[in-house]
Amino acid sequence: MKFSINRSVFIHNLTDVQRAISSRTTIPVLTGVKISVKEEGLYLTGSDATISIEAFIDAKDDDNKLKIESTGDIVLPSRFLGEIVKKLPSDMMNLEVVDNFQTEITSDRASFTLNGINGSEYPRLPEIDAKQTYILPTDTFKQVVNQTIISVSNQEIRPIFTGIHFEIGNGELKAVATDSHRLSQRIMPLTMPESAGDTVLDINIPGRSLQELIRIVDSNEDIEMMVTDNQVLFKARNIYLYSRLLEGNYPNTDRLLPNDHATIIEVSASELVNAVERALILSHEGKNNVVRLNISDQDIILSSQSAEVGNVEEEINVVKAEGEALEISFNPDYLREALKSFGQQNVQIGFQSSSHPFTLLPSDQTDNFNFVQLITPIRTPRG
Amino acid sequence: MKFSINRSVFIHNLTDVQRAISSRTTIPVLTGVKISVKEEGLYLTGSDATISIEAFIDAKDDDNKLKIESTGDIVLPSRFLGEIVKKLPSDMMNLEVVDNFQTEITSDRASFTLNGINGSEYPRLPEIDAKQTYILPTDTFKQVVNQTIISVSNQEIRPIFTGIHFEIGNGELKAVATDSHRLSQRIMPLTMPESAGDTVLDINIPGRSLQELIRIVDSNEDIEMMVTDNQVLFKARNIYLYSRLLEGNYPNTDRLLPNDHATIIEVSASELVNAVERALILSHEGKNNVVRLNISDQDIILSSQSAEVGNVEEEINVVKAEGEALEISFNPDYLREALKSFGQQNVQIGFQSSSHPFTLLPSDQTDNFNFVQLITPIRTPRG
Repeated sequence: MKFSINRSVFIHNLTDVQRAISSRTTIPVLTGVKISVKEEGLYLTGSDATISIEAFIDAKDDDNKLKIESTGDIVLPSRFLGEIVKKLPSDMMNLEVVDNFQTEITSDRASFTLNGINGSEYPRLPEIDAKQTYILPTDTFKQVVNQTIISVSNQEIRPIFTGIHFEIGNGELKAVATDSHRLSQRIMPLTMPESAGDTVLDINIPGRSLQELIRIVDSNEDIEMMVTDNQVLFKARNIYLYSRLLEGNYPNTDRLLPNDHATIIEVSASELVNAVERALILSHEGKNNVVRLNISDQDIILSSQSAEVGNVEEEINVVKAEGEALEISFNPDYLREALKSFGQQNVQIGFQSSSHPFTLLPSDQTDNFNFVQLITPIRTPRG
Repeated sequence: MKFSINRSVFIHNLTDVQRAISSRTTIPVLTGVKISVKEEGLYLTGSDATISIEAFIDAKDDDNKLKIESTGDIVLPSRFLGEIVKKLPSDMMNLEVVDNFQTEITSDRASFTLNGINGSEYPRLPEIDAKQTYILPTDTFKQVVNQTIISVSNQEIRPIFTGIHFEIGNGELKAVATDSHRLSQRIMPLTMPESAGDTVLDINIPGRSLQELIRIVDSNEDIEMMVTDNQVLFKARNIYLYSRLLEGNYPNTDRLLPNDHATIIEVSASELVNAVERALILSHEGKNNVVRLNISDQDIILSSQSAEVGNVEEEINVVKAEGEALEISFNPDYLREALKSFGQQNVQIGFQSSSHPFTLLPSDQTDNFNFVQLITPIRTPRG
């Protein structure tokens, strides 16, 4: 195996596949990047057993300056390979497997020899034999993921909640995530592949896989998605991201979304984010991390205190307020992330009582749950 | 005590004085910033007992928009004060000590109440009653500090080596630092104050104090320096930095600087830095962090290896090479920092043997020790 290549093309693709590699892996070969040289080009692969990312560098694309002298496979230590290629002196680099999987990387006068591992020891990528290919518009899909991933749980105790639940069928994609304290839901229209017919796809994709996917894709091209029983494959540009699906049935979350409210306020999401960020300077000091909202006839006050440091309160500017007076306490980090998912929009926040979950909806779309954030309050002695 | 002020002026000065505050202090009042309001303006002070930084905000300077309603002192928790003022909503902020050292900070609709400490509990700044004021040109002095501070020791076992030694007299300032593995020396011309006469000032200033000083000063104004028996005061713009001096006699380091060399090479400092940074990717993996330089009639090779990962070698481009063949091993981090202190200059590296310290001098100034970096090699089995 021997080739030379434009160094920045190699770095760019290496960085993409390294996203799949975990420093905490217990499988030694997965600390490496697999480099496969075939007649048609170069394949780089990184994996942590859940996610695998493969990049293809086309020999026919002149920008890549890829010149293949002989084909073959090798696995090289990911971190060192990355540090080395970033520090090489010239625009071009050469890579050659010499002897006993020892690999020589040269550029100008610098010459590295790295101890590699036989490429055949690297796990094979899953076979994806899917009947349908779904075409996801990149920008909208990125938004769907960003708006729901905030509620993904990082507790491995109930693995199904570490993913986003997708229901795809009847011309739409519905994404739901919950960690049992909060819930995010977003529905987007989606053109169904003809062969799909009435099929409704019901899958749970690990949050981390989606996080890495949206970091890699850029807006210029759609994402293709193919699903099998236990795997999903996303293809964007020259990158293939394979992810294991989470097993199990996602609970029905529709019944959690309340339809009527005792109190409703409408605010600018970004203005309220700023006030919440002021309040959490103090709430983060307390043991409970609680911020309180007091809605009365006169005014709406956000407040927090830390016995040691002091307290904060701020009158909130509202576009509209209606319904009953209310005092409610909550985790300000949840409210902050939920508000941020609305960007510069106005938000309608609907409350039932100080002990029931409250919802955030876009002000211009309050008659459905196409986009909703739900947060469970914290019961406090004073609440 | 009550005032209002332009918020970004307050933030800017607060950030400067916070540099003196250590999160590891064991003296509770020193976790705070002292705010003193006097008729003439606002004084902010931060301190860790070794360094104290005071900033003066002039009431007469219209840009400060400082409006004083009543004078007084308070100590407020540094970290919270910083987080709060950075997040306040408006361009202006108000601060008022209300009751029992409770302090109200308001801006637009946001209102914080912080638990303060009586200003009288804050330690007094040292009295500086110095006969002379030395005027340090900021840019040159910054360079002197940056070029020598790399050799300051971070081992508290021999406190004197945690500082830079200054000898000031006869029209020059000589700065020396050493951690016993390497040494940095830089001499700069300096206009003596008339009252100084033949006095030679011999002081040891903690490295950290100088580090903070050069972070705060900007190039527009000279730095004034005043020295007493155990304190130094630097004044730059509206900032006063007080530092304790290190006690004890600094050893005579002149005898460590060799005058003759068996082998001399001349290189571009920045080119060699790049090669050293490639070599240390692997040396950092080994237990010993060693890079080797092989100088022969044919070529000059920099190399390093890690049994686990692999090895690297690179032929070094030299402007000039003369003298005996040599193989020498050293800590690449020391060489890297020493080379970086030369910027884009060419450097003459002079060796006596593989076991004697070697020196780096600017190529255009090799007949004196106005600027020299010295590094002790590492003896290896093969060396």
